[in-house]
Amino acid sequence: MKIQLLDFGYVDQVDSWGSDQAIIEAARMSTDKGFLGWGTKEKPGDEKLLKYLYEHKHMTPFEMAGMTIEVQAPIFVFREWHRHRTQSYNEMSGRYVEIPNLTYLPSTERLMHTSTGTHQATPKDGAPKLTVEGAENFRHALRETYVAQQSLYEEALRGGIPKELARIHLPVARYSRMRASANLRNWLGFLTLRTPSDAMAEIRQYAYAVSDLVKQNFPRVYDLYIGNA
Amino acid sequence: MKIQLLDFGYVDQVDSWGSDQAIIEAARMSTDKGFLGWGTKEKPGDEKLLKYLYEHKHMTPFEMAGMTIEVQAPIFVFREWHRHRTQSYNEMSGRYVEIPNLTYLPSTERLMHTSTGTHQATPKDGAPKLTVEGAENFRHALRETYVAQQSLYEEALRGGIPKELARIHLPVARYSRMRASANLRNWLGFLTLRTPSDAMAEIRQYAYAVSDLVKQNFPRVYDLYIGNA
Amino acid sequence: MKIQLLDFGYVDQVDSWGSDQAIIEAARMSTDKGFLGWGTKEKPGDEKLLKYLYEHKHMTPFEMAGMTIEVQAPIFVFREWHRHRTQSYNEMSGRYVEIPNLTYLPSTERLMHTSTGTHQATPKDGAPKLTVEGAENFRHALRETYVAQQSLYEEALRGGIPKELARIHLPVARYSRMRASANLRNWLGFLTLRTPSDAMAEIRQYAYAVSDLVKQNFPRVYDLYIGNA
Amino acid sequence: MKIQLLDFGYVDQVDSWGSDQAIIEAARMSTDKGFLGWGTKEKPGDEKLLKYLYEHKHMTPFEMAGMTIEVQAPIFVFREWHRHRTQSYNEMSGRYVEIPNLTYLPSTERLMHTSTGTHQATPKDGAPKLTVEGAENFRHALRETYVAQQSLYEEALRGGIPKELARIHLPVARYSRMRASANLRNWLGFLTLRTPSDAMAEIRQYAYAVSDLVKQNFPRVYDLYIGNA
Repeated sequence: MKIQLLDFGYVDQVDSWGSDQAIIEAARMSTDKGFLGWGTKEKPGDEKLLKYLYEHKHMTPFEMAGMTIEVQAPIFVFREWHRHRTQSYNEMSGRYVEIPNLTYLPSTERLMHTSTGTHQATPKDGAPKLTVEGAENFRHALRETYVAQQSLYEEALRGGIPKELARIHLPVARYSRMRASANLRNWLGFLTLRTPSDAMAEIRQYAYAVSDLVKQNFPRVYDLYIGNA
Repeated sequence: MKIQLLDFGYVDQVDSWGSDQAIIEAARMSTDKGFLGWGTKEKPGDEKLLKYLYEHKHMTPFEMAGMTIEVQAPIFVFREWHRHRTQSYNEMSGRYVEIPNLTYLPSTERLMHTSTGTHQATPKDGAPKLTVEGAENFRHALRETYVAQQSLYEEALRGGIPKELARIHLPVARYSRMRASANLRNWLGFLTLRTPSDAMAEIRQYAYAVSDLVKQNFPRVYDLYIGNA
Repeated sequence: MKIQLLDFGYVDQVDSWGSDQAIIEAARMSTDKGFLGWGTKEKPGDEKLLKYLYEHKHMTPFEMAGMTIEVQAPIFVFREWHRHRTQSYNEMSGRYVEIPNLTYLPSTERLMHTSTGTHQATPKDGAPKLTVEGAENFRHALRETYVAQQSLYEEALRGGIPKELARIHLPVARYSRMRASANLRNWLGFLTLRTPSDAMAEIRQYAYAVSDLVKQNFPRVYDLYIGNA
Repeated sequence: MKIQLLDFGYVDQVDSWGSDQAIIEAARMSTDKGFLGWGTKEKPGDEKLLKYLYEHKHMTPFEMAGMTIEVQAPIFVFREWHRHRTQSYNEMSGRYVEIPNLTYLPSTERLMHTSTGTHQATPKDGAPKLTVEGAENFRHALRETYVAQQSLYEEALRGGIPKELARIHLPVARYSRMRASANLRNWLGFLTLRTPSDAMAEIRQYAYAVSDLVKQNFPRVYDLYIGNA
């Protein structure tokens, strides 16, 4: 289930719990028909109930399922991700370990991509339209910078600079790694904020990978999410 | 795994996720040694690491595991329980359904119990020491009251009073039912607040039932919890 | 600012912080134009920015303001209220004190009220349509029950029953009292769930009282809330 | 109240709410003696009650007060800060604006600092002991790197690279700016985790600045925090 993305990124499932059916059963608690003796067999009306819950935003039953994933992504992606305060995180720490030499290099196509309808990704006012050559030059400059940054990092470590300070010049494009755990309601919230076209292209790819995992684990909830997006 | 308690109460496990080992692996993310390729095989130092995390209150790895349970308890127990704002809840609703005729009747022993060292459960200032006869009289009066309350409830429902109003005279000793889901860090927080001797005796019994489930699912974390309580 | 409601209920403001303008300034942090040197003077575009934030659901700036209130309400109202897990609560405890003798008695009009378009408040299947006489009879029975419940409570306390057990037969219509504190984003979430017509009539009255306080403290946000409800 | 720290950092108070006394009043809700008619006058036993609450970890009353601050700090400090999921954040965004040219350069003294008793800040295994000359060389190299990174940033912006990509090679030592808001309970949690000697030296300075603001706004709570730290 490991989903590769960007140049060195991935999303991989560690764990999941609950199910479409567990959500329905939890919702049935409110009507006294969901207690445990009831089992996990499907009942008439289940499909309709799940749809009703989702469309009327009765979201607490969707907290009765969830997923833990492992993610490798550039720091600037994690910076946006960690604003989702309902997820649990354990991330690699540059204070403890030497950070692996992996840095994100956007493709020429990505650099040339003109966002439409959004303000965020636009060039500086007055800047000329980016040419393919301009994009390739930037990629070349990034590559050189990354190499120089890594050299300085290694040199600092070799020279006895403490790990937590030897890495402060490393770029926000550097990859880090974490585990993230959340219930399904909160994963759906993540998708709602990070899949739209005004989200940054890189985190959108991660959000789509998460939505693939939602689809595999909770196919009926996924259909409702897609149908109402 | 259904644990009976009080006269009609229970705690039953619906689901659990993660494991002692998953917590250790998540903690190892920070040192770059916990990534997925690593598997779930035990490594030297695991035992020590778990102990270190727990004792130094590095609690985020304990968010990578959890349990969903079903609980039947008196409303006054749920009133305390629901203050734990990190759990997810789905409860039976008296607006939708006729509430089952189950009401908590404390035992004579429970009534006679004198809490020591706490202020909460004490009698009113100036009240005489409770006698066994006094306790039995109160139990008798409660039983009669419960019957009268149920009669009025049934009569109101039969007379066309809306369900959400027909139940407002029902007592806080009436049983309700819910599912509750939380990660292990939050379950440990629940135990820390609800097992001590100044917690109310009824919710303490539920907390002990939850601790039994923690023991079954996460035996090593349970040992640390007990060893440091 | 004390707002009376139901027979013995109230909502009263204890504190508020932030302002419409503080929300705008916080939002301007993202564009580097909201830093403190900037003051609280209004800038061109403020009105438009606030509207943009609200309508595009960029809700984090609305966390930079808030209110603390004091509430007296029946326990069944608090039972719904406390499901809002982002608020902070301090409530009167029946383990410590003798609970004041205040119990909610619905008006005949309230009892006769037929909810439309919702399933929740409806009478039991097969029950006859409620008559005015039936409603008055129920009110009469409630009144008698409340008196009997209070008598038993007082008798139990006088007889040395611990406070925490002497009150377990008291009804969910009994009033309790609390302070509740939340940021504005979370108060708006409360209003969104508790003012619609399928919310229970009693908590709706409290939600309207809270919306009055939002209007007084944050008039521009209130206008957006009303305009988009 | 602006507190300067590191080379370009600061912590500044935007707002505060509640007070030592408001916390006491909220706590008194549980004993029916804290209602609003009561006013904010001090009562006998207040001092003792506050101490009792703090020492027995009855922390919910401490949620009835709080502060909003503005912070300028290096990204690596924000990376740790944002793990505090109970705070509200609004941060400057490199997708919208050109990031100011401010980057943290540790002092020689800071670089030479040998952490004791902790594992985190230590040099790489086998590295020689850092000399003053080595530290000065690293500072020199950092300064040059920062200049080169800024040049490439400006060049990319001028060449039409979208803002969100033109900045991905900028270092985690670059300063960013945000507003952060939390209740006092959560600020105390922040201090507990970020002032100890195993916290990173840079975030410790910010935590000390926050503790100064706590001292100014909530002097009695501060005394308890210090007395129990």
